[in-house]
Amino acid sequence: MLWFIGIGITGPDSLSLRARQIISECDIVYFEQFTSPIKEQNSYEIRSIVKGEFRLGPRWLVEDGREILDAARGKKVALLSYGDPYIATTHIELRVRAVLEGIQTDTVHASSAITSLIGECGLHYYKVGRTVTIMSGIRPSTAYYTIFENLKLGSHTVVLLEYNQNRGFFLSPVEAFKSLLEEEREQVRKVVSDSLYAIVASRIGFEDQKITAGKISSLLDKDFGKAPHTIVIPGTLHFTESDALKALAECADMPEENTPKIEKISAQMMRKYVPMVRRALEQIAPHYSDAKEFAGVLENADLYIRDAERFFEQGKDELAILSIGYADGLVDALRIAKGIEPEMNS
Amino acid sequence: MLWFIGIGITGPDSLSLRARQIISECDIVYFEQFTSPIKEQNSYEIRSIVKGEFRLGPRWLVEDGREILDAARGKKVALLSYGDPYIATTHIELRVRAVLEGIQTDTVHASSAITSLIGECGLHYYKVGRTVTIMSGIRPSTAYYTIFENLKLGSHTVVLLEYNQNRGFFLSPVEAFKSLLEEEREQVRKVVSDSLYAIVASRIGFEDQKITAGKISSLLDKDFGKAPHTIVIPGTLHFTESDALKALAECADMPEENTPKIEKISAQMMRKYVPMVRRALEQIAPHYSDAKEFAGVLENADLYIRDAERFFEQGKDELAILSIGYADGLVDALRIAKGIEPEMNS
Repeated sequence: MLWFIGIGITGPDSLSLRARQIISECDIVYFEQFTSPIKEQNSYEIRSIVKGEFRLGPRWLVEDGREILDAARGKKVALLSYGDPYIATTHIELRVRAVLEGIQTDTVHASSAITSLIGECGLHYYKVGRTVTIMSGIRPSTAYYTIFENLKLGSHTVVLLEYNQNRGFFLSPVEAFKSLLEEEREQVRKVVSDSLYAIVASRIGFEDQKITAGKISSLLDKDFGKAPHTIVIPGTLHFTESDALKALAECADMPEENTPKIEKISAQMMRKYVPMVRRALEQIAPHYSDAKEFAGVLENADLYIRDAERFFEQGKDELAILSIGYADGLVDALRIAKGIEPEMNS
Repeated sequence: MLWFIGIGITGPDSLSLRARQIISECDIVYFEQFTSPIKEQNSYEIRSIVKGEFRLGPRWLVEDGREILDAARGKKVALLSYGDPYIATTHIELRVRAVLEGIQTDTVHASSAITSLIGECGLHYYKVGRTVTIMSGIRPSTAYYTIFENLKLGSHTVVLLEYNQNRGFFLSPVEAFKSLLEEEREQVRKVVSDSLYAIVASRIGFEDQKITAGKISSLLDKDFGKAPHTIVIPGTLHFTESDALKALAECADMPEENTPKIEKISAQMMRKYVPMVRRALEQIAPHYSDAKEFAGVLENADLYIRDAERFFEQGKDELAILSIGYADGLVDALRIAKGIEPEMNS
């Protein structure tokens, strides 16, 4: 029998009676500490509940898994971890191996920092998009891209920061911001700037929990205190979310939506090409005033510019781009024929 | 003092010692039951912990909030709810009002069904995108659109199903699937079909919890048993996620990724327009073999078709569409001038 037991975000005092009962009945209790840091004090408290054998579960032991599975074949074994057990995919993989080997498994779910921090920031849980992690020394291109995609949809992004148990290392929020700003200089999609609004959730569940919010420019010289920290990049903000942030966080700047600050590539294109093609059309029309066979081309160009605008308003971005590209092609064919430099290459 | 206390997903036996202590010390304990159903038995167990006054907290009372805030001004008050308290935005709003009125607040976080079910299905938590709800009698266009956007990014979508406490009503998974299929007939973006792979997580945290998975066609005649149920539409599946699903769920069909089944609008356009414009170019070229002034137009059209293909391979979808639209415009200008029906309207 193999139990996966989450101890929640506040340590052993968030263990339920049921969890305590199960732990006390287990022959061997492994305490996993590599997915999240555990206070020394908590470790003592856990030991006091254990009546069987207490063992620490470092990363290699849990990932290898054989010792735990061997033990669970004949004995009652529990694997304890911080937060909810299955946020860490390592635990899911171990459970699946146990199931496939015919070992009975069960779970005690618990509060998770990643879930709790959303509410503690006053944000709406359903608006959270895909989660990312930033690691030191690795370009945060996935984080950058995910933030961009989430922002386009108005979603919030939870940005987890590297934790390395062996080295006792936490990536600081400031280092994460700097690496995102650096990534912007590479990608140039205008996603991350000094004025991006960010939230830093520090020590969620601890007594000295703190939420700090502001533009990145205001956060770069902040001291957020001890780890762990998590960053949230909000997308759109419902007024109740803004109000909640103001009440629950220390705001260096008033809450601001990030979604309106980014511009979809389609919007950038429309802003550039619609006036450009319209101008080119006006310029070329007089050259063909006597060429009746080209009157249809001029008419169509005008129609497709309007179509592009209409499609874009309707949220049909791809059709809008196709239409403005088509109108541009119609106009440029006439320009090229008259030896006028085509607009598209400008 | 106002406490927000989550009782987790398995009922009062998941309450921690700390939560029990706090509840027993409160003068008034409100038990909120409208965000999730609570078993009658659980209600009795909660009452047995309460030493002060026990009151039920229906929706109108919590949303109005004045009675609770009035009480919390002078007394110790707790609001108990199923799962984690701040998944429900109503609770965040009440907390913010308390903070603004100078009432001290604190929180006991707990396990949440919405977090737990991801791990119970064997899916990776960080890959979950924005969450949606399907309501009976309302077109699920937001759910449809969100599933589409999540699938494009390879993300999983958690689809919550309507729960109405007053009417004792739960929307069934089968009804939700039917309404999504109906929405597909309206939207025609090829997102939801009989072959979309879906997971139904039933009664998460209850003793008779069950995970069922399969193509929608295989799930439409399934009896999922008692509510609550939640649907998950997986995006891409890491092999450990597929393996976990096979081990943890009753699979009517082997796990399948949904992301490769959908086609981005840009991909649909490229598949249609690249061969079409190329054909049109070949067809019109002989008509202009003697018109040197149009040689540049033909050359440019050929170049931009190739650009479109190259941009699309590079993931620059918007530029690809703009380029193929432009090439189409160049070619059609020549066709229109010769009185040949333009391709774009076909």
